[in-house]
Amino acid sequence: MRLFSFLSDDGPALGVLLGDHVVRLGKGFDSLDLALTDERLGDLRHEAARKSKEPGVPVADLSPLPALEFPGKIVLIGLNYRDHVVEQKLDLPPRPTLFAKFGNTIIGHGESIVRPEGTNALDLEVELALVIGKRARRVTREHAMEHVAGYLVVNDVSARDWQGNKAALGPGERGDGQWLRAKGSDTFFPIGPVFVSADEIPDPANLWLRSWRIPGSGPRAGESILMQDGTTADMLFDIPALIEFVSRAITLEPGDIISTGTPSGVGVFQDPPVFLQPGDRVRCEVEGVGFVENPVIDWSEVPDEDPA
Amino acid sequence: MRLFSFLSDDGPALGVLLGDHVVRLGKGFDSLDLALTDERLGDLRHEAARKSKEPGVPVADLSPLPALEFPGKIVLIGLNYRDHVVEQKLDLPPRPTLFAKFGNTIIGHGESIVRPEGTNALDLEVELALVIGKRARRVTREHAMEHVAGYLVVNDVSARDWQGNKAALGPGERGDGQWLRAKGSDTFFPIGPVFVSADEIPDPANLWLRSWRIPGSGPRAGESILMQDGTTADMLFDIPALIEFVSRAITLEPGDIISTGTPSGVGVFQDPPVFLQPGDRVRCEVEGVGFVENPVIDWSEVPDEDPA
Repeated sequence: MRLFSFLSDDGPALGVLLGDHVVRLGKGFDSLDLALTDERLGDLRHEAARKSKEPGVPVADLSPLPALEFPGKIVLIGLNYRDHVVEQKLDLPPRPTLFAKFGNTIIGHGESIVRPEGTNALDLEVELALVIGKRARRVTREHAMEHVAGYLVVNDVSARDWQGNKAALGPGERGDGQWLRAKGSDTFFPIGPVFVSADEIPDPANLWLRSWRIPGSGPRAGESILMQDGTTADMLFDIPALIEFVSRAITLEPGDIISTGTPSGVGVFQDPPVFLQPGDRVRCEVEGVGFVENPVIDWSEVPDEDPA
Repeated sequence: MRLFSFLSDDGPALGVLLGDHVVRLGKGFDSLDLALTDERLGDLRHEAARKSKEPGVPVADLSPLPALEFPGKIVLIGLNYRDHVVEQKLDLPPRPTLFAKFGNTIIGHGESIVRPEGTNALDLEVELALVIGKRARRVTREHAMEHVAGYLVVNDVSARDWQGNKAALGPGERGDGQWLRAKGSDTFFPIGPVFVSADEIPDPANLWLRSWRIPGSGPRAGESILMQDGTTADMLFDIPALIEFVSRAITLEPGDIISTGTPSGVGVFQDPPVFLQPGDRVRCEVEGVGFVENPVIDWSEVPDEDPA
């Protein structure tokens, strides 16, 4: 089951994605944001099957929304791809590095990533994220996958100076130490419109994931420049290991998100470093899960008292 | 206005705290967890005034709940008291250090802090927390206080080995780098039962705050040992500065919490270090805001599949 979130004339709506067409689900199935329990997933599956014989609308005609607009916890994993650790010349971490974002970071496909005041070092990170479907507390890796409802493609947007990456800092400057501002500023978590149920991805440890920067100006304006080109096979801690590790300390609830880390190729470790500029677009794609593409604007382009 | 959250026979309830008595508020005023907007605060104030002539119940007869059980974002500030930075032999930070907790951390007065599997370095941090009452986005310090609805006392429980404090680590061991596990494990954010509206605290930069450890065993069992004894006057970044800094990147919404940091005296920087043990109790108090006291238990005392 692939569910597509979009904005209809009467508000947020949910449809089943069949090839390049979407059939809207019926009453009571307007979003995924009710707790994504096994029971709710069963109801969604039943409704999606019922609707799948009806004619759909081309997906290109719809205004996408984030697949999950009001999730519970958003737990992210840093330094989880071997090649991304190597490109930073760091030791392999002995255990997963956990950090957090809040809902203020979430935007959908096509919405603007806002570069906040005080950073010029905006960067992208394509990631496979999973959504919890069943409460997970001290779950062993053997049972971990029973707690995964499905998958999303996300972009873990990062301000590299605030994050403390040397290549983004001037002499004597230092990062924030903790990453909440560097990774948790408004609009820093684009989520694709598609939720793919777990049964559609039999092997989440064998998916390619890629990101592109599309410059808005300069000699390569409009060109899709491949940045990251990795595979989830490269994860240092696989999904069962992550769920085991997190759930030993932090109880996971239906609707919570774990974003599983990013492969090499990000802008800050290019030589010279490449940062996202207002006018650029970024595109992140995960095999079988979909894509999310967003333009970049500067904070000064957003009125102060409006929602970002 | 001081509002007291408690568990009544028919579920969560809210009362106005008058001295040592509580008068329960009427229908529609069962908790603070509806978005804590100016309008909602006005309604609460009106209801509290209406009830304040009625006879109350002794506060000691009530079962306290966290003053805010389902807040929005929980943003915490690290290294925000001069003496706490000095006790760590660190440089003064050039700007606030932001980190996050999620709702899984929240417990009320009397509930158990659970020491999770894999740490023996549990520590306490008394803090003054503020609750946002009005959306704050790029707010200047001059207008910052208009966005504060009120205050809470909290305990920023921390696993010092996971946090990376040297005194808690063996040779060759290292911390997590990011603090989400060290500070965001289940039960790591005890919140007092009392919400104090902002007008009751004319000068939040001049409050004492203290914490005590009450050992469950050993020669000083049962004794209240003073650990931290600080004043909010010692903050490196005061509340207006924090709201200005956070809201430049992260939009704050009604019901969000900012916890403003902790003074010196925590266990890890004692010589030798003192960590919380199962059987101990910890008490945190902020002048004019109230207190929260909790026993400590080990994770092995909690059944695997029950809520912590």
